[in-house]
Amino acid sequence: MHAEDKGINEECGVFGIWGHEKAAELTYYGLHSMQHRGQEGAGIVVSDGSQLKAHKGLGLVNDVFKHANFSTLQGDVAIGHVRYSTQGAKTLENVQPLLFHSQKGSMALAHNGNLVNAYALRSDLEEEGSILQTSSDTEVLAHLIKRNGNEVSEETITEALNQVTGAYAYLILTENQMFVALDPHGIRPLSIGRLGDAYVVASETCAFGQIGAVFEREVLPGELIMIDHGGLISTRFAMREQRKMCAMEYVYLSRPDSDVNHVNVHASRKNMGKELAKEAPSNADIVVGVPDSSTSAAIGYAEESGLPYEMGIIKNRYVGRTFIQPSQELREQGVKMKLSPVRSIIEGKRIVMIDDSIVRGTTSKRIVQMLKKAGAKEVHVRIASPAIQHPCYYGIDMSTREELIAANYELEEISNLIGADSLAYLSEAGMEKAILIDKTIHQGICTACMTGKYPLPVDGPKKPFYPACEVL
Amino acid sequence: MHAEDKGINEECGVFGIWGHEKAAELTYYGLHSMQHRGQEGAGIVVSDGSQLKAHKGLGLVNDVFKHANFSTLQGDVAIGHVRYSTQGAKTLENVQPLLFHSQKGSMALAHNGNLVNAYALRSDLEEEGSILQTSSDTEVLAHLIKRNGNEVSEETITEALNQVTGAYAYLILTENQMFVALDPHGIRPLSIGRLGDAYVVASETCAFGQIGAVFEREVLPGELIMIDHGGLISTRFAMREQRKMCAMEYVYLSRPDSDVNHVNVHASRKNMGKELAKEAPSNADIVVGVPDSSTSAAIGYAEESGLPYEMGIIKNRYVGRTFIQPSQELREQGVKMKLSPVRSIIEGKRIVMIDDSIVRGTTSKRIVQMLKKAGAKEVHVRIASPAIQHPCYYGIDMSTREELIAANYELEEISNLIGADSLAYLSEAGMEKAILIDKTIHQGICTACMTGKYPLPVDGPKKPFYPACEVL
Amino acid sequence: MHAEDKGINEECGVFGIWGHEKAAELTYYGLHSMQHRGQEGAGIVVSDGSQLKAHKGLGLVNDVFKHANFSTLQGDVAIGHVRYSTQGAKTLENVQPLLFHSQKGSMALAHNGNLVNAYALRSDLEEEGSILQTSSDTEVLAHLIKRNGNEVSEETITEALNQVTGAYAYLILTENQMFVALDPHGIRPLSIGRLGDAYVVASETCAFGQIGAVFEREVLPGELIMIDHGGLISTRFAMREQRKMCAMEYVYLSRPDSDVNHVNVHASRKNMGKELAKEAPSNADIVVGVPDSSTSAAIGYAEESGLPYEMGIIKNRYVGRTFIQPSQELREQGVKMKLSPVRSIIEGKRIVMIDDSIVRGTTSKRIVQMLKKAGAKEVHVRIASPAIQHPCYYGIDMSTREELIAANYELEEISNLIGADSLAYLSEAGMEKAILIDKTIHQGICTACMTGKYPLPVDGPKKPFYPACEVL
Amino acid sequence: MHAEDKGINEECGVFGIWGHEKAAELTYYGLHSMQHRGQEGAGIVVSDGSQLKAHKGLGLVNDVFKHANFSTLQGDVAIGHVRYSTQGAKTLENVQPLLFHSQKGSMALAHNGNLVNAYALRSDLEEEGSILQTSSDTEVLAHLIKRNGNEVSEETITEALNQVTGAYAYLILTENQMFVALDPHGIRPLSIGRLGDAYVVASETCAFGQIGAVFEREVLPGELIMIDHGGLISTRFAMREQRKMCAMEYVYLSRPDSDVNHVNVHASRKNMGKELAKEAPSNADIVVGVPDSSTSAAIGYAEESGLPYEMGIIKNRYVGRTFIQPSQELREQGVKMKLSPVRSIIEGKRIVMIDDSIVRGTTSKRIVQMLKKAGAKEVHVRIASPAIQHPCYYGIDMSTREELIAANYELEEISNLIGADSLAYLSEAGMEKAILIDKTIHQGICTACMTGKYPLPVDGPKKPFYPACEVL
Repeated sequence: MHAEDKGINEECGVFGIWGHEKAAELTYYGLHSMQHRGQEGAGIVVSDGSQLKAHKGLGLVNDVFKHANFSTLQGDVAIGHVRYSTQGAKTLENVQPLLFHSQKGSMALAHNGNLVNAYALRSDLEEEGSILQTSSDTEVLAHLIKRNGNEVSEETITEALNQVTGAYAYLILTENQMFVALDPHGIRPLSIGRLGDAYVVASETCAFGQIGAVFEREVLPGELIMIDHGGLISTRFAMREQRKMCAMEYVYLSRPDSDVNHVNVHASRKNMGKELAKEAPSNADIVVGVPDSSTSAAIGYAEESGLPYEMGIIKNRYVGRTFIQPSQELREQGVKMKLSPVRSIIEGKRIVMIDDSIVRGTTSKRIVQMLKKAGAKEVHVRIASPAIQHPCYYGIDMSTREELIAANYELEEISNLIGADSLAYLSEAGMEKAILIDKTIHQGICTACMTGKYPLPVDGPKKPFYPACEVL
Repeated sequence: MHAEDKGINEECGVFGIWGHEKAAELTYYGLHSMQHRGQEGAGIVVSDGSQLKAHKGLGLVNDVFKHANFSTLQGDVAIGHVRYSTQGAKTLENVQPLLFHSQKGSMALAHNGNLVNAYALRSDLEEEGSILQTSSDTEVLAHLIKRNGNEVSEETITEALNQVTGAYAYLILTENQMFVALDPHGIRPLSIGRLGDAYVVASETCAFGQIGAVFEREVLPGELIMIDHGGLISTRFAMREQRKMCAMEYVYLSRPDSDVNHVNVHASRKNMGKELAKEAPSNADIVVGVPDSSTSAAIGYAEESGLPYEMGIIKNRYVGRTFIQPSQELREQGVKMKLSPVRSIIEGKRIVMIDDSIVRGTTSKRIVQMLKKAGAKEVHVRIASPAIQHPCYYGIDMSTREELIAANYELEEISNLIGADSLAYLSEAGMEKAILIDKTIHQGICTACMTGKYPLPVDGPKKPFYPACEVL
Repeated sequence: MHAEDKGINEECGVFGIWGHEKAAELTYYGLHSMQHRGQEGAGIVVSDGSQLKAHKGLGLVNDVFKHANFSTLQGDVAIGHVRYSTQGAKTLENVQPLLFHSQKGSMALAHNGNLVNAYALRSDLEEEGSILQTSSDTEVLAHLIKRNGNEVSEETITEALNQVTGAYAYLILTENQMFVALDPHGIRPLSIGRLGDAYVVASETCAFGQIGAVFEREVLPGELIMIDHGGLISTRFAMREQRKMCAMEYVYLSRPDSDVNHVNVHASRKNMGKELAKEAPSNADIVVGVPDSSTSAAIGYAEESGLPYEMGIIKNRYVGRTFIQPSQELREQGVKMKLSPVRSIIEGKRIVMIDDSIVRGTTSKRIVQMLKKAGAKEVHVRIASPAIQHPCYYGIDMSTREELIAANYELEEISNLIGADSLAYLSEAGMEKAILIDKTIHQGICTACMTGKYPLPVDGPKKPFYPACEVL
Repeated sequence: MHAEDKGINEECGVFGIWGHEKAAELTYYGLHSMQHRGQEGAGIVVSDGSQLKAHKGLGLVNDVFKHANFSTLQGDVAIGHVRYSTQGAKTLENVQPLLFHSQKGSMALAHNGNLVNAYALRSDLEEEGSILQTSSDTEVLAHLIKRNGNEVSEETITEALNQVTGAYAYLILTENQMFVALDPHGIRPLSIGRLGDAYVVASETCAFGQIGAVFEREVLPGELIMIDHGGLISTRFAMREQRKMCAMEYVYLSRPDSDVNHVNVHASRKNMGKELAKEAPSNADIVVGVPDSSTSAAIGYAEESGLPYEMGIIKNRYVGRTFIQPSQELREQGVKMKLSPVRSIIEGKRIVMIDDSIVRGTTSKRIVQMLKKAGAKEVHVRIASPAIQHPCYYGIDMSTREELIAANYELEEISNLIGADSLAYLSEAGMEKAILIDKTIHQGICTACMTGKYPLPVDGPKKPFYPACEVL
């Protein structure tokens, strides 16, 4: 399923490259491979050693860069960002990397994550006379670094990072240095690769595959890396905590070909499907996955259960931003949008329908109805992750608690609400078993949205609302 | 694989609806579901009983209609078309439905197929003083109908159809009648459905599913159907020949959820995969399909062979028309475009790579290389259809004979050329067995591009070249 | 005043060039200089001796060609057209030059004027089986030429021209010949110039100035000129009638720097202003012209009367197609659009307001009101041409007789209706004296819209209405 | 002449309105009437009493607002800006009004002018930790106001204004107050009008005419005005100096229908033409002005000298931003751009050519050549202002001293360089006499660019260069 339908909004993706003459173009391809992480805006900032240049825009990576003139984006260092706004304002000024100029030099920032103390930090900064241009928490870090007229350095960045709390992966670029930082729990993914002599940094390893780079290592929790012409220097800006990689990266967010903290996402999903088949078998004729994110789990369930895997639901590849939404009337008459059932496969069958997760339940209900209308005799819903019962404060824009169906109803009730003949979720233990293949390497995962076990204290992020500046 | 990469170009898709107050909008959704049949242009002509109005444009259905004002496309009858130009000229004037006005009334035409005697017919018409506006063979039929100042009627259409030779599915619309015609061999698909009281006609049945309509029957070879306020009248304009449905519709062209001449496309592909596993097993660890068109066959192969089906190749969903193609240099350095290998799945494995067909062989070579570079120990290529050795004259824009790798090389040579450890094609018999499940219903298929057995005489279509009128 | 406000719609402009390697670009500049003759669409067809290529579009010349690739419009012969549609349909297919292809060769047509027997000719052609694509009368001529499979030649064009009646200036282009034709009364302007060795043809001589070409001669009434590599050959396709150049070309339509049939337009307007001052003097303080078209006449009136000429009305240069029209409410509160009064010039003054013509009277009323509101003590309206009382059938889209204020009211009544303190028109004799400086050269002018003396019989043009094909 | 050709670049224009429910729309029309003051970008910020909303963009006012949704720009207070960038960077972030948000409230700024100590002020601010987002000096004022966490008030603005030096007209908007400020010499124009109960502020009074508002008074040098629901309060933030209104506003920049500091611009130009005729008569046949800015002066010269005023040069109205510039080759062959000569008026005549000013001399040379080529017997150039010999530091982007022809050559030399038969400038005294009709009211004018008498010390503005952020 597509994120917007479910109520899970993608977060963001960052990409950086140091030491390749086609830095901006490679960043374009890298961002392109992480398009699923943010479809609202994209940008690249490139440095040629003496100045930073940016190209940014609202929309998909392709749309933003189709008229870009890469010949003016010269330089062998670049960082880039794809963005999903976690607040209402879809405005150009919020598109990252943010770029700041001063008479002493420039600085660009790209950020994936969410700070839980951003509101309080803004108040302090404004009290001191600072003017913030955007409504994003990314800008706060820039002001913390530049406080008192500081220059951008390992020291000033370390000092600034020690003032922020939350989940974050940062890339910071000056004319001649690139900084890479990951929060002390390593909640968001961030890896380092090599492309020849060049260093590459990306939220997902699929970006390495896209450009022919090779994975080198994970950025470590609490690590601050500085890259310049002398090479790469690693320091630690905070005590290392146990890694708590976001479980939703495996369940839903990341691309199946990415390895997140050493675990291949497709493989983990297939494992989750297998565990699910063990925990919650069902008397059925065929296994059908909800495309695209549940395909891997469905194949795993089929393999484990011995039931045939069939393409009972088709996703319309061409439904994009310009698709004209059918009126309520036409929708009720049966006009489909993204998903269509395949009647000749479904008709008369008992179906195990595999989905990766349920958020509000409205989408699940629609798909179950669709399958029944297309002739399914029974629909047994199996969810390849534990029920989502708590909001995320670390960078994923899920629905509020009031909207989370599993926070408000019992299993049986949910099954009835979505019209399923039976319903089961994967257990927390099953999920951990599927993902944490080797605990010594993979350490822990953050399951806060399922279990309420938040690795970091949260006092409810009060986010200041700023009216948007509409731009053409 | 995407068609353009392979050297097979999609043909076209037609859609018609009679008797629904939202005729134009439903046509939009119908065309949208057949977007894969033609991505170069789209159009809709609607009748409100007294006049025909059109909206047409170059580009994807979404692009063409994103600014359309459906409130001006009132009327309860409409026909539509998605187009892949089989000639160079990507011009607005060639976008269908073609619309012709005269003082006595108007006529719109939408056409899927190709006439083999179009050139000769144009010569005759021009000798008589006719001026043709487009370079498409569709316009020829319009002039044949209107010859001598005729009005559009069952008689004049029958007379015109008897002058043309080829493969075709036609929709013709006047202010108050819709005509539907299929060539005497039924080479191109065309089905009739019902949506409440409304009649629906479409190249593929997936369009029925899209709008909630129900399949009623196939249009028969040599049948001419007239729909007006009195209902539907069927006549026969030619002696019925044995049905020769294009085999490539099953192999590659149609959507997996469509039923083509009563056979579900996904099921036929899965069958082809199973037959292929029987005919050409291989010592391997995993089965990998080339997404999207080969997924069904790969699942069939896996099921039959008992080997696990894995997502070893990922298709980048966001590569579209505005994607900036990497330079040769970056491509050589490893920048990927549509397909990426998943190293953690492929590495060290012996792979059966399933593809639906090979045309020029260049794509297959690239994919095999990609898999090997990602660590595959062996790559055994299995093609889920017979080798393509002959050009198509009936509406599919395949490469010329010179470019068809199977027309010029032996099996072993091809295997070497594409760098595979072994290569096998499905046999003609295997394909027929997979598709023609019940011969009494399904009759025959056209396998001309594989076997050279052309159901219709062809003397080589001399297509007149017309320079394009570029439009903004 | 801008045409659309007054109720006079510009007609069209044609341009052709033979024998210059930058033919398409020079045509662009030539059309640009005639932009005032048609703002709805523009096009260029170029020939490189073996094929014709077109670039056409809706909108201003700049908009149509801003993305044109002139390097694909190679060839040393070109014709072009700017268009004002005299019928509702603003569609791309009606944009000229029309381009027709056949197996024997191609033909392009550009036309300024109007045929009075087009409807009857269309009927005949359709009776014979011809299909016409556009709703313009230009296409009729193409079909008449190609009747019976004719090739394009002096003979077939002569035969076709002898079947049409009306006012027209035609440019016809084949791969290797250009034809130029003017109706037997020479109602529409058409001149020939030279640019080095190249021949240039244009509706207005300002196009010659624009590209540095030199005026050579007028095309004569009833003349058919053929230009090819052998040079220019002139023939006569009809008995020459006395020239009846459209008087409105001098009064309003042409650019002041053009010479129409040997008379400079600015000079003729200044003369009309002088004659008007003699015929209708007024007790006033200053002379104010309605910009831009009445400026010349106002200067003439001022010079003859000895009153100072002042810029009492300013035209806002930036009001274009994208200007957001003020709501009725804001308009009533005083929001101005194109014209603004200059209070410090007008206040307390008795004003002679010079305008070139009055059509419906609504604009005049608005301007008089505006001047009074800005403090004018008296406003004496003086019109530098006779009253318009009859519709034009020869290519200018004026209002219908019902809307023409002078067809329905006496002088005194009109003066009251528009709120003037006095009103006078230039007499027919005065206009003729101003324009026809040397009768032996200039012959006659068509004053049908003022006097009802139609040089050609008209039986009321029944124009077939065709619904528009909207295009992106 | 158009500014860009001459080397004078328009500055900017500001507009504000307090107390009208259509505030944003009226601001649109007001900005539209001042389009000539800045064609690079435009913006509006509106307040509904509780929040500020902006719509901004690059391009002409029409282009920026053609897709604006005014229904989301609700509020009865608005300020707007049209911009000509005085630095290279044509970027959206520099488009004004600048809008700043903080947790305590928002502030918008619009600025016409130039600060001469901006560079030093930026250094100080950055030393203290401030991050500036734009490269405009307008942002500096915002940071000065907000220093130390200040709120926006009469006191903090006064304090900030006392730190800046230069020529400026400021509009500042908060949720519930509007501030208006003019520099102590009143170098830039700024007037107050009334529209019913609403207050209107604008750089030029033509904006009042545009929306039906009535001029009330000039903003005084050194005056700070605060408007809120209680009405308008005027204070003085600096000792009032003698007014030094920019002379170029009369000579070239302002619209002829504006009154600048009580003097009508057309009238002042006509006066300059008359004075010029007295100071520098010439033996000639006709007077020709270079359109549009020299038309008034030419009429004045003609009236005073008794020579006839003729339209010997035509300006092509349709040459805009999308005009395709002719190649050097075509230009040499005679392809014209904005200005065309009218041969039938010019040929054989001795011409007095009136221009408002000469900057680099290249345009004058081109026009003289053009007139001679069109047959002028003699061309006597008369400039309706004194020679420009010094750069402007107060907001007009003229050429540097090296490029100013009058800074480097004697009168005779310039006459020869531009190919004129004679040349004369208006004297300083003549200009003052023409403009300062009543010295007690009009006080003084700034003639620094002609005389070098700078009213304010300038130490050469070192402007920091920031690379542009390209946006789609």
